[in-house]
Amino acid sequence: MTAPRPASPGDTLDRVETPALVVDLDALEANIAAMASRAKAGGMALRPHAKTHKSAEIAKLQLAAGAIGICAQKVSEAEALLGSGVKDVLISNHILGEAKLDRLCGIAKHVRVTTLTSDAAHVAMLSQAAARNGAEIEILIEIDAGDARMGLQNLNQVGPLAQAIDKAPGLRFRGLQAYTGPFQHIRDPEERADAALASAEIALEARDAILALGLSCETITGGGTGSFDYDLSEQAFTEIQPGSYVFMDMDYGRNEDGPSEVFRQSLFVLASVIRVPEKRVVYVDAGVKSLNLDSGMPGVHERTDLAFTKASDEQGRVEIATKGQAPKLGERLLLVPSHCDPTVNQFDWMVAVRNGRVEHVWPVDARGCVI
Amino acid sequence: MTAPRPASPGDTLDRVETPALVVDLDALEANIAAMASRAKAGGMALRPHAKTHKSAEIAKLQLAAGAIGICAQKVSEAEALLGSGVKDVLISNHILGEAKLDRLCGIAKHVRVTTLTSDAAHVAMLSQAAARNGAEIEILIEIDAGDARMGLQNLNQVGPLAQAIDKAPGLRFRGLQAYTGPFQHIRDPEERADAALASAEIALEARDAILALGLSCETITGGGTGSFDYDLSEQAFTEIQPGSYVFMDMDYGRNEDGPSEVFRQSLFVLASVIRVPEKRVVYVDAGVKSLNLDSGMPGVHERTDLAFTKASDEQGRVEIATKGQAPKLGERLLLVPSHCDPTVNQFDWMVAVRNGRVEHVWPVDARGCVI
Repeated sequence: MTAPRPASPGDTLDRVETPALVVDLDALEANIAAMASRAKAGGMALRPHAKTHKSAEIAKLQLAAGAIGICAQKVSEAEALLGSGVKDVLISNHILGEAKLDRLCGIAKHVRVTTLTSDAAHVAMLSQAAARNGAEIEILIEIDAGDARMGLQNLNQVGPLAQAIDKAPGLRFRGLQAYTGPFQHIRDPEERADAALASAEIALEARDAILALGLSCETITGGGTGSFDYDLSEQAFTEIQPGSYVFMDMDYGRNEDGPSEVFRQSLFVLASVIRVPEKRVVYVDAGVKSLNLDSGMPGVHERTDLAFTKASDEQGRVEIATKGQAPKLGERLLLVPSHCDPTVNQFDWMVAVRNGRVEHVWPVDARGCVI
Repeated sequence: MTAPRPASPGDTLDRVETPALVVDLDALEANIAAMASRAKAGGMALRPHAKTHKSAEIAKLQLAAGAIGICAQKVSEAEALLGSGVKDVLISNHILGEAKLDRLCGIAKHVRVTTLTSDAAHVAMLSQAAARNGAEIEILIEIDAGDARMGLQNLNQVGPLAQAIDKAPGLRFRGLQAYTGPFQHIRDPEERADAALASAEIALEARDAILALGLSCETITGGGTGSFDYDLSEQAFTEIQPGSYVFMDMDYGRNEDGPSEVFRQSLFVLASVIRVPEKRVVYVDAGVKSLNLDSGMPGVHERTDLAFTKASDEQGRVEIATKGQAPKLGERLLLVPSHCDPTVNQFDWMVAVRNGRVEHVWPVDARGCVI
């Protein structure tokens, strides 16, 4: 079911078949280096989230720049990224089901595998799977660090749960996850900083409850592209796990005083104008099957006179401002995804470009790996 | 890049790995039969749109039930569906670019291929490609049948454009496309009927302009799952091209007096509860990478006490009504996609189930085929 490759190495950008997922290699490399140096300067480990790029090649670049490992969000996603040579994988999700836990244990035989729980019944399932497979799985307790999602809300339960994990055969208690997804997108920088501080305080309170029981708490992981600067100053976490910084998107661009001042847009969907009707509008060959609209409409790169306003399955409507220049039939536009992660997941191939020429056509190795 | 198969034939539904795209075969077959018999009774040809299912196996079932061919929305999508044995493909889109037009001509050497235009400059590109490849491509003029999208708006230009196509080497003028996507989802049945009538009148006016020039107009294609009943009564089209009826979705379910009275929901995303926090909410293992939210949130099948309210990349939040029954950790829920087409396009595999048992695991052959 792999879709045809849209380009070959050596092609110029105008020969790439559209729509195509295009990555600007200079910007990608600069982003990887910038986050690595920020984390290093902050004295904190960097474990990039690979759910954003789903690419073993990009994971390799992150590891080469000093990342201690990667995060994945699903077991099959982690499996698909082992080709990167990664040795330490955090599956930052709650994994259930016998078959899936057996797969998880299969990975744990080759590399260090950590995953999350917030529930004693779930700890029993994890332990049974580890015992059944003769594997050791490391466990973080996911705490609710303020966003009221899947984490454990009652901090009084953290200590007893850590003890249960510590005693469970096949499991090793490793620490805490205190990630807050929605906080990454708080627009006002002061509010975002306050939210990061509050999360850090919750994480430290949970850590202290664990230490008080005589257990160790090796890892506290959290933070993302929107909060990493504050997370580095708080120094509550031992590692940060940002994902989107490699690519960036319209949504992160809306954060004021935000990550777009540190990272460059490296991800685009290259589209072609396929229809120029009578009025001040054109249609491109990219719609909701090439762009994910859960965070709004995509932008049009370096074209303030154009606005992408609507999409059907395979067509996008682009409106032209009063004094704007109407794109011609066949003209190509670089669209900036509104949400990078699910947009990448639409494509089988990522066209990596430098100076207008295709350098690599990378597979999106973990595309569709939802199980 | 193909994701792992979530099931094997013979598995019971509770063994399918989640999240998985699940098709109820009884409902699918009933939907295919119902549309085939409606079209037959209405004396109109049926050309189902394969962009909905992207599956050669489902196209085979539609052809066996009497469909005269299929629609595809992209060239690579059509290529991926040739395994169905289809002999007549309408690529219901405007195809540009030398490489893509060469591929189109490649298909035209094996099966009857028709595609759309609304523009004289585009006709020249199509003709050059046909001549270059020694192929014959059949052409429909896409007219604006009322929805102000890509179709030709000025009906005075229809005749001259038909003549230009008729004279262009390698092209054969076949007729008109008068499809109106947004009209399929008009909630009020009277308004929807009025819109269908207006489209039919525009199509007949365009046809008359062509006939007046001494050209023939073999085909008028249009109509979808929301309008087919009205299209069949108007008798302006020669064929209808509905897609979603095979699966149905939440969005079509919102049409009053609509297609959900004729067709059954056959498409689901099977998800597992992975977290039961303290409050009246659970989280499932399906988010925006398994469900497409461009038409709102998915439903929860046969559970009026549960509401899917929010999704992150790989997690979905399900809220429990005051007197509702809280799902347990590991419990499975069947989610009803809000928009079937882009949801199918997230998955590499379709698990076809009858009476709670897996009968087939079909590849989504044209998944990701956007070029």
